[in-house]
Amino acid sequence: MGKAIISREQDYSQWYNDLIIKGQLADYSAVRGCMVIKPHGFALWENMKNELDRMFKETGHQNAYFPLFVPKSLFEAEEKNAEGFAKECAVVTHYRLKTDPEHKGKLMVDPEARLEEELVVRPTSEAIIWNTYKNWIQSYRDLPILVNQWANVVRWEMRTRLFLRTAEFLWQEGHTAHASREEALAETRQMLDVYAQFAEEFMALPVIKGVKSETERFAGAEDTYCIEALMQDGKALQAGTSHFLGQNFAKAFDVKFSDKNNQLDYVWATSWGVSTRLIGALVMAHSDDNGLILPPKIAPIQVVIVPIYKGEDSKTPIDDKVKTIIADLHYYGISVKFDNDDSKRPGWKFAEYELKGVPVRLALGLRDIENNEVELTRRDSGEKMKTSIDGVAEVIKDLLDDIQKAMYDKALQFRNERITPVDSWDEFVQVLETKGGFISAHWDGTAETEAIIKEKTKATIRCIPLNNEQEAGKCVLSGKPSKERVLFAKAY
Amino acid sequence: MGKAIISREQDYSQWYNDLIIKGQLADYSAVRGCMVIKPHGFALWENMKNELDRMFKETGHQNAYFPLFVPKSLFEAEEKNAEGFAKECAVVTHYRLKTDPEHKGKLMVDPEARLEEELVVRPTSEAIIWNTYKNWIQSYRDLPILVNQWANVVRWEMRTRLFLRTAEFLWQEGHTAHASREEALAETRQMLDVYAQFAEEFMALPVIKGVKSETERFAGAEDTYCIEALMQDGKALQAGTSHFLGQNFAKAFDVKFSDKNNQLDYVWATSWGVSTRLIGALVMAHSDDNGLILPPKIAPIQVVIVPIYKGEDSKTPIDDKVKTIIADLHYYGISVKFDNDDSKRPGWKFAEYELKGVPVRLALGLRDIENNEVELTRRDSGEKMKTSIDGVAEVIKDLLDDIQKAMYDKALQFRNERITPVDSWDEFVQVLETKGGFISAHWDGTAETEAIIKEKTKATIRCIPLNNEQEAGKCVLSGKPSKERVLFAKAY
Repeated sequence: MGKAIISREQDYSQWYNDLIIKGQLADYSAVRGCMVIKPHGFALWENMKNELDRMFKETGHQNAYFPLFVPKSLFEAEEKNAEGFAKECAVVTHYRLKTDPEHKGKLMVDPEARLEEELVVRPTSEAIIWNTYKNWIQSYRDLPILVNQWANVVRWEMRTRLFLRTAEFLWQEGHTAHASREEALAETRQMLDVYAQFAEEFMALPVIKGVKSETERFAGAEDTYCIEALMQDGKALQAGTSHFLGQNFAKAFDVKFSDKNNQLDYVWATSWGVSTRLIGALVMAHSDDNGLILPPKIAPIQVVIVPIYKGEDSKTPIDDKVKTIIADLHYYGISVKFDNDDSKRPGWKFAEYELKGVPVRLALGLRDIENNEVELTRRDSGEKMKTSIDGVAEVIKDLLDDIQKAMYDKALQFRNERITPVDSWDEFVQVLETKGGFISAHWDGTAETEAIIKEKTKATIRCIPLNNEQEAGKCVLSGKPSKERVLFAKAY
Repeated sequence: MGKAIISREQDYSQWYNDLIIKGQLADYSAVRGCMVIKPHGFALWENMKNELDRMFKETGHQNAYFPLFVPKSLFEAEEKNAEGFAKECAVVTHYRLKTDPEHKGKLMVDPEARLEEELVVRPTSEAIIWNTYKNWIQSYRDLPILVNQWANVVRWEMRTRLFLRTAEFLWQEGHTAHASREEALAETRQMLDVYAQFAEEFMALPVIKGVKSETERFAGAEDTYCIEALMQDGKALQAGTSHFLGQNFAKAFDVKFSDKNNQLDYVWATSWGVSTRLIGALVMAHSDDNGLILPPKIAPIQVVIVPIYKGEDSKTPIDDKVKTIIADLHYYGISVKFDNDDSKRPGWKFAEYELKGVPVRLALGLRDIENNEVELTRRDSGEKMKTSIDGVAEVIKDLLDDIQKAMYDKALQFRNERITPVDSWDEFVQVLETKGGFISAHWDGTAETEAIIKEKTKATIRCIPLNNEQEAGKCVLSGKPSKERVLFAKAY
């Protein structure tokens, strides 16, 4: 085949890369740390984007677009935010190239075209957006501003992984402005709920909603809420964040509004984002050693039809029958690919679409037509079934729902089995190294303890779950008193 | 009002800026030459994008995403392309900021974080894409590649105008690879037709399809096809281009394929793009001194409903009636905004939505309900009409179609009246200065003559129309023989 992928057991990390490359989601590029998102991967992102965009609009948000570049003087205005991102910034310093006099046919940066002020390629857009909001907000009547943008951002990471951590990635970033703390907090939580609902309903990915410790907080936020998912290797992955920014950015950019009593106050802010990283989560949560397994609700192709031709005579009757099946599938809004390329054998196609994660395969030969049946194969379980050609579209429609649910249930069970309450340090280390997953343990609430645990084990506090049970205990490392358990894990 | 805009006659250029800013399409930003696209403007772009995206997919294209950055060594590989864009390139030279030891709270570019190779922020993506295609193409079986990307690009223009010419803009760029010259040429022409159809059908913007002179060609292309539109001030605007790239990029990046006879040959290429510049064209083609006039097929809001409240008692009956009207409009897929903000007077709202270009306004008071009628106002003509509340949605549906058609017809008539055949140089200069528009004149086919005409008059050859009538004549400037007329105009 030349397409075989390594097994999870042999090399989990290589398995992941194989899935991305051979499953044709993305490719490496000539730019360090940047990837090319291939059509199959981009179609997946489009489906995810469309659902998220619909959910954002249903909750009253509008899209807008802000500049790619942030002048350095604006970038540094909110100090914590600036400090948090300074080390990962791509910086534009010049605006022109010229012919290199010493190398024929080559170009060089024109030293005379140096920018007066350097431009940071946005790693996130709070600075440029709050500098803009300053001009949009005078009174409470101008609030709330509920804006989202779909954009590319750049963070110069030293160690990159396809989708999970790339120097450039695609994302959406919501940036809202409010007249009160309560309203901004409600927005922060609302968007966290939107993310959780999207992950669970569309990506079949169970997530834990929680709040970050101070150490793990977004630079410039008062609180960072997050959804955390579990991958098949027992490592956690932060799948989305929603930040309550307080009045930090309003103060940095001097954005005030007059309230109903004509009193001036700083504006309250939130920001929230998910990125193409979600594709990495999707791949690692569901796939197997044969390739990708994509949830039907966002799969670019939901059904692939593979004809089993036997000689030229078989083509017309099979193609005719397939045509009616496709029409029925389209009636139910099911996306379908008919792969009638007769330079490839059915077995090759079976493996190919398995690799690409198509949820349902329909195979049809002359014999099937005689028997008025087709063979359906589920990608998630590999289960095969024969069903009557009449009404096959309805059967597939239900099957897609079943697959979506089964994928979620399986991931949920896997995740739930890997939340382990732990009460001693030895147990903490042992569970982390053997079983992995989330460790639910008491923590004394200090950044020092958190740092020591991270240094000793590489585990970080993934979140303090929302509505966490309050339970007196002792910190798993320091033994100091604690009033609740938090979730630790190694993470992507 | 504080929102009044200047008239076209007083100051056409300021009128345009007023429309963009006060019509809330876009705003200036803190970054030189870059704009913020506001929600109203972005919703318009989304509608345009959705239609174009559908048309691209219907013609077999898929979306993908390629890196924002192009390493300098790749950028310079296709020499003409590189030369054409070198003077407008934003260049990333560093990947880190650090605390400025001499200015507390400030950051500076870290001199130790200099990139080994500078990265150009893409002004167009042929280089990075063809460097990628090299890995995707071995044989004719890998062809054609029909890929499009929606992206931001940066061209460091010295003189910028909102939407028309901005340092960063949003666009789509199609990049296709083919096994033969004929197939690539057919693709180039097909996409030109898609652009023309989109402009005429959705933007109500009549365009002339043609091919560029060598001087006006895209850097690196063998031929550039274009659609040219006419603005209300008599200047032309290039609204989209489709390039036949021959084998230029395949040669620059060494992209060969083996054909059916196992012969190696370079791959044939096209690229084609339209950008947010189209919004500038839309604004200048249709709007009037009261504000924007947006074509119904892409208007973010197609109908605005303004209630005429008279006292608290009137609210409930009016709101109830509006609810049923909205439901009816939604049944026909018509987008509607009900502006029931009672802190604003109806007259203020009328002016506001006129300014924003909403095609139809529906006003409704208690008296109207008693008479079972509503008042509809067309944005394009200002015409008012009373119609029965029963069936108003169907009336509006037809009205929107009428408006779309009337806008196109009006723009077409305006354009057609301004294509002037001219046979002497005096006449050329006179028509250009008084009437403006397209001048159809003989040209000797040389770049020299073209350059002299541009220098003397600022007019350029907009295009040689497709299927141009072959007619012997003499060049309007040089008097040398010519076999066809070409279209000259001043242009944006």
